[in-house]
Amino acid sequence: MGKHVFGVDVGGTSIKMGLFDESGSILDKWEIETRSADGGKEILPDIADAIIEALGRDDIARSDVEGIGVGVPGPALSDGTVPLCVNLGWRESVDVAKELERLTGIKTKVGNDANVAALGEAWKGAGAGVKNAVMVTLGTGVGGGIIIDGRIVHGVHGAGGEIGHINVNPDELIPCNCGRKGCLEQYASATGIARLTRDRLSKDDKASSLRNITITDITAKDLFDAFKAGDELAVEVGEQFGEILGRALANISNTVDPEMIVIGGGVSNAGDVLIPLIRKYFEKYTFASVATTMIRLATLGNDAGIYGCARLVLD
Amino acid sequence: MGKHVFGVDVGGTSIKMGLFDESGSILDKWEIETRSADGGKEILPDIADAIIEALGRDDIARSDVEGIGVGVPGPALSDGTVPLCVNLGWRESVDVAKELERLTGIKTKVGNDANVAALGEAWKGAGAGVKNAVMVTLGTGVGGGIIIDGRIVHGVHGAGGEIGHINVNPDELIPCNCGRKGCLEQYASATGIARLTRDRLSKDDKASSLRNITITDITAKDLFDAFKAGDELAVEVGEQFGEILGRALANISNTVDPEMIVIGGGVSNAGDVLIPLIRKYFEKYTFASVATTMIRLATLGNDAGIYGCARLVLD
Repeated sequence: MGKHVFGVDVGGTSIKMGLFDESGSILDKWEIETRSADGGKEILPDIADAIIEALGRDDIARSDVEGIGVGVPGPALSDGTVPLCVNLGWRESVDVAKELERLTGIKTKVGNDANVAALGEAWKGAGAGVKNAVMVTLGTGVGGGIIIDGRIVHGVHGAGGEIGHINVNPDELIPCNCGRKGCLEQYASATGIARLTRDRLSKDDKASSLRNITITDITAKDLFDAFKAGDELAVEVGEQFGEILGRALANISNTVDPEMIVIGGGVSNAGDVLIPLIRKYFEKYTFASVATTMIRLATLGNDAGIYGCARLVLD
Repeated sequence: MGKHVFGVDVGGTSIKMGLFDESGSILDKWEIETRSADGGKEILPDIADAIIEALGRDDIARSDVEGIGVGVPGPALSDGTVPLCVNLGWRESVDVAKELERLTGIKTKVGNDANVAALGEAWKGAGAGVKNAVMVTLGTGVGGGIIIDGRIVHGVHGAGGEIGHINVNPDELIPCNCGRKGCLEQYASATGIARLTRDRLSKDDKASSLRNITITDITAKDLFDAFKAGDELAVEVGEQFGEILGRALANISNTVDPEMIVIGGGVSNAGDVLIPLIRKYFEKYTFASVATTMIRLATLGNDAGIYGCARLVLD
């Protein structure tokens, strides 16, 4: 085994890069721009250039690099191809592993960004060595990752861990970004929480500190700030969020029965207040023997992806 | 590797036993009684005796046996212990693997019965070599099994694949056998389908051939017989069943994204009519890229368990 590994987390605007030793300690990290114009054809050459530059900078022989792990914001198949990645301008299948291997001479593995973040948290973050974990990333959307026996469940169509699109409400009338109606993402993402809050404020004229904010400007952070201050209306909305997410996580746990559930993404900045809120409904809905499953906040923040990418290679 | 494997599927009333060669061809199968009285303490010695007898009968050396795979009607941990198994009279944890190894001198692996049935179907049944599959067993209850990369997801508490207890209706008032309310099992099991049918018949006086049957005697088979004959009320209930099960399977597929879903258990005897019914709602609710997932009827019937048990050992 070589002595170094690269983790490369490709986002829509920037590419986070990390150099790790084989024990998973981070030696260096930096970012480059994501050039998604022109069908995103510069992205993989840019990554290859950055890696080759880093090898020179740190005086590392190519033969001392075990591999490159790459996370992409779209479906990733276990063979290293990405069928489609709109955020990167890739409208056709790209064989990321093969192309980066050709450009760098270094073995490459590929995963979905939410999946590699889950792997990172299970390995070096909230999970710290847990082999079976589910991570849900509550950001603008809702992403997820399922780790079984220390490995990502990529899924046959690259849709493993697409838990943001679990249907939680067959009666929903408003469509999700994915085109279906009633997805978890419509209620548990930052935008979903803001929507639940606006809907509750519009329902009647119950007093709330949230009425001091222009209704169209309300964010998930506003909701949780008011929740923490004990605002009754905010508590109602918080409970609604907790029930929807807790029930979805209970159903996932009845399917794959992980040791730990990790809550990440921007919404998790609300902090420890989230855990009892989710746990209350998780325990209400899950199978009795599963009710003791740990629920923790993510700890690696935006670095979860590069850690998980490194782990892809070290597996 | 030895030349033979035993598959032992332990049920509440009988124990199915199979002798396989290492390619998974069945050489012999038979049943013995499950003696669950006295805390089920005779069960493992009975299995050991039956195996030792079979070795003598077929003139097989112990060293030519690769192992014993055992399925139990309760949670099974990946280390071969069974924390609790009420159906077998086991009120405390039983180390099935260790005890059978002690009694027979043969390496033993253990799985939950619905999980090993899923593995059997993925290996030699409907899946025929599929590495990633979900099986749902619609019987008196609803069981399930998740196969990822050819292996059972046992789960940390032995509750992997407990999809019968996914919550599909947070508004349900009547409790499930598990104590929670609104589990899939309450709608998609044979008893659940009979309940849906009775509830529909009681709702109004719409004409139906099902009214010729004493309402308390109505079975899932009666419902599907009337469904196939085009009975309008039966079609309504069938669609209700299809929507509940199809949505649950869509949500599971958005989590683990299998290549195939296998429908087994007594209800699957209704036959091919089930597939389009489930598929219609599966496609309505699942993530677009997952909508092409195959849905098939199980083909091994009651033998799925012994095949899966054999596969546990040959893995």
